[in-house]
Amino acid sequence: MIYITRKEHFNAAHKLYNEAWSEEKNDTIFGKCANKNWHGHNYDLFVTVKGNINPDTGFVVNLKDLSSLITRDVTNILDHKNLNLDVKGMFAMPSTENVAIFIWNILFPKIKEMGAELHRIKLYETESNYVEYFGE
Amino acid sequence: MIYITRKEHFNAAHKLYNEAWSEEKNDTIFGKCANKNWHGHNYDLFVTVKGNINPDTGFVVNLKDLSSLITRDVTNILDHKNLNLDVKGMFAMPSTENVAIFIWNILFPKIKEMGAELHRIKLYETESNYVEYFGE
Amino acid sequence: MIYITRKEHFNAAHKLYNEAWSEEKNDTIFGKCANKNWHGHNYDLFVTVKGNINPDTGFVVNLKDLSSLITRDVTNILDHKNLNLDVKGMFAMPSTENVAIFIWNILFPKIKEMGAELHRIKLYETESNYVEYFGE
Amino acid sequence: MIYITRKEHFNAAHKLYNEAWSEEKNDTIFGKCANKNWHGHNYDLFVTVKGNINPDTGFVVNLKDLSSLITRDVTNILDHKNLNLDVKGMFAMPSTENVAIFIWNILFPKIKEMGAELHRIKLYETESNYVEYFGE
Amino acid sequence: MIYITRKEHFNAAHKLYNEAWSEEKNDTIFGKCANKNWHGHNYDLFVTVKGNINPDTGFVVNLKDLSSLITRDVTNILDHKNLNLDVKGMFAMPSTENVAIFIWNILFPKIKEMGAELHRIKLYETESNYVEYFGE
Amino acid sequence: MIYITRKEHFNAAHKLYNEAWSEEKNDTIFGKCANKNWHGHNYDLFVTVKGNINPDTGFVVNLKDLSSLITRDVTNILDHKNLNLDVKGMFAMPSTENVAIFIWNILFPKIKEMGAELHRIKLYETESNYVEYFGE
Repeated sequence: MIYITRKEHFNAAHKLYNEAWSEEKNDTIFGKCANKNWHGHNYDLFVTVKGNINPDTGFVVNLKDLSSLITRDVTNILDHKNLNLDVKGMFAMPSTENVAIFIWNILFPKIKEMGAELHRIKLYETESNYVEYFGE
Repeated sequence: MIYITRKEHFNAAHKLYNEAWSEEKNDTIFGKCANKNWHGHNYDLFVTVKGNINPDTGFVVNLKDLSSLITRDVTNILDHKNLNLDVKGMFAMPSTENVAIFIWNILFPKIKEMGAELHRIKLYETESNYVEYFGE
Repeated sequence: MIYITRKEHFNAAHKLYNEAWSEEKNDTIFGKCANKNWHGHNYDLFVTVKGNINPDTGFVVNLKDLSSLITRDVTNILDHKNLNLDVKGMFAMPSTENVAIFIWNILFPKIKEMGAELHRIKLYETESNYVEYFGE
Repeated sequence: MIYITRKEHFNAAHKLYNEAWSEEKNDTIFGKCANKNWHGHNYDLFVTVKGNINPDTGFVVNLKDLSSLITRDVTNILDHKNLNLDVKGMFAMPSTENVAIFIWNILFPKIKEMGAELHRIKLYETESNYVEYFGE
Repeated sequence: MIYITRKEHFNAAHKLYNEAWSEEKNDTIFGKCANKNWHGHNYDLFVTVKGNINPDTGFVVNLKDLSSLITRDVTNILDHKNLNLDVKGMFAMPSTENVAIFIWNILFPKIKEMGAELHRIKLYETESNYVEYFGE
Repeated sequence: MIYITRKEHFNAAHKLYNEAWSEEKNDTIFGKCANKNWHGHNYDLFVTVKGNINPDTGFVVNLKDLSSLITRDVTNILDHKNLNLDVKGMFAMPSTENVAIFIWNILFPKIKEMGAELHRIKLYETESNYVEYFGE
């Protein structure tokens, strides 16, 4: 059993704003992140996959294939987008936590089809904040 | 003559879209950056100041003062903002080039008042792209 | 269950010197780290917290609160200090291992009060050396 | 129980090429990595060791000793080498996965002799790709 | 006048070996870099271009075009290659200095055609060594 | 003419405290940096040398020699030291500015003897603050 990680990235706008709350409460809880006109981030995404090594290739998965999958099914729909407005299926508040779970749910079945298992989504919102999700 | 640099950062939304052009031409020139609903970045800002060393302190400028100035007059108006909508005085397209010049124009006279000279604004939009402006 | 990490930092002086040993033995074991007049480091501290997501906020914990807690109870007492002389309660040798455990002991109960659980303290002494402590 | 990590690095040439396959198949699977005349990387190696803290030193292991061990038994035989041609005992395809296991097998018994336990080999081939091996 | 920089990278094998010298002299001068069977690096390439800002776009040059140019004319011929064997026109010893000049000579006329001026090639061979060339 | 840079590092303690001033004034000007019991940093040092390329080697200077020189004459006397107490010839306040000039004065004549010219000392005190000195 070995673990391999591929780093990708995307740049997106979002805001954290709970429509069920007053503007004042949004300001108290979310601070500057509640700015009505959005703000944005360079997100760094680390996808970790685990499995056995194929003796013919020395690979758990072919990183070219893993990178293509992430590009096609994840970064294509998040990169240079507004996470609140543009992303179909992003029902929840686009906090880093919820974006990480959103990505997990897309990739988990697809990586199974590649013969490996998704182990972890690690998502940096800034160089000081990151989230890890293991599907538990 | 010695040069000292302070790094600060801000997170903002923007888009690159020329209203005088068709949507098609905007897409051709700006690609994903023209997304109507915005996208965003973590900007890293490096402010370089030059001057002589004060023998009492060993400093060109006191970095506490330089950092306070940048926070008060630059990052407070750019951080967690929409560069197209929220920033008074940002008349031009908020490309990295124009944001760097915008920051230069704010800081140049203020650093003069501190007894030093602004040498360079270096602004990273992503870890792969940065702009430098020397006021020339 | 999701994990969120906040990075903070502090700059401190210390030395590694066992008073029960001869100077010679200290030199053999600790090398340059035993220098009587101290040396120092820029420490990077990563605090990882785990818990469930609050559906109103999308957060495990509010990072503003987590950052304020770390600043008030950890970096305020370690930053720009001498770890051997200035830090009340640092009974043991201020190796990276012991400083990590010291920080864990401060934060563990406070993070419980925030409704989450401290998962890991990761402390870099230099970019080539870091320690991880999970409270076990 | 605490975990300590030491970072080292080595620069090496390699290629990924399965002699049992046609050139065409090698190109399809390995792409540019199959270039006959080799290519190369700056590898970053993170060795994580776990154990109890020695109260006399505050250390799990003395990092000077750990670093010397890695230099003598790992980087000396990999640094500025061709992983396919120069490394005795590298029987398998020198993918990042296999190089990580190769390093694990060298270090595991030696770290046991130091009174600690090897926990993880983490090996970066590029800043976008890394492998982790835990000996399982 | 403003300066914009684009980062790209390539991974390559090379050796430093002067055929006019004895093996012994090569070892003395080049040390491990003279290994007959090659070694390799992850090269980070920073291309800095200067010019005036186009008021319609806010750009000195369109970074999509600059990136395509570097990919097509530079990294396509260096990435996953052996710098001594595979690169047509690399007449000189493939030291970082000479590779930087090789890249300058390719890009200088092409960037002129884009309406800007190449200012600097900055090439990292490792994170501890880099070369800068300004065409002088 | 080409420029080559070598990165080295050292870890040291210091304080910023002007003995001619009251404790109060020291606190006002230097803040936490005036802590009597010292604090410390991981300093990153970038030494840039310029010259012509030797056609036999492809080098401006042999980086092995440059690195040995910096280790022997600079980092050996600064690493794991107290910059105020342990460093002979450090007459001035050990601000980053003054340490950079101190290093310049040591290296300038030695690099001349190697047949090249010292161009710049760049010294990071933290990842947010650095100084550059060009000998002017």
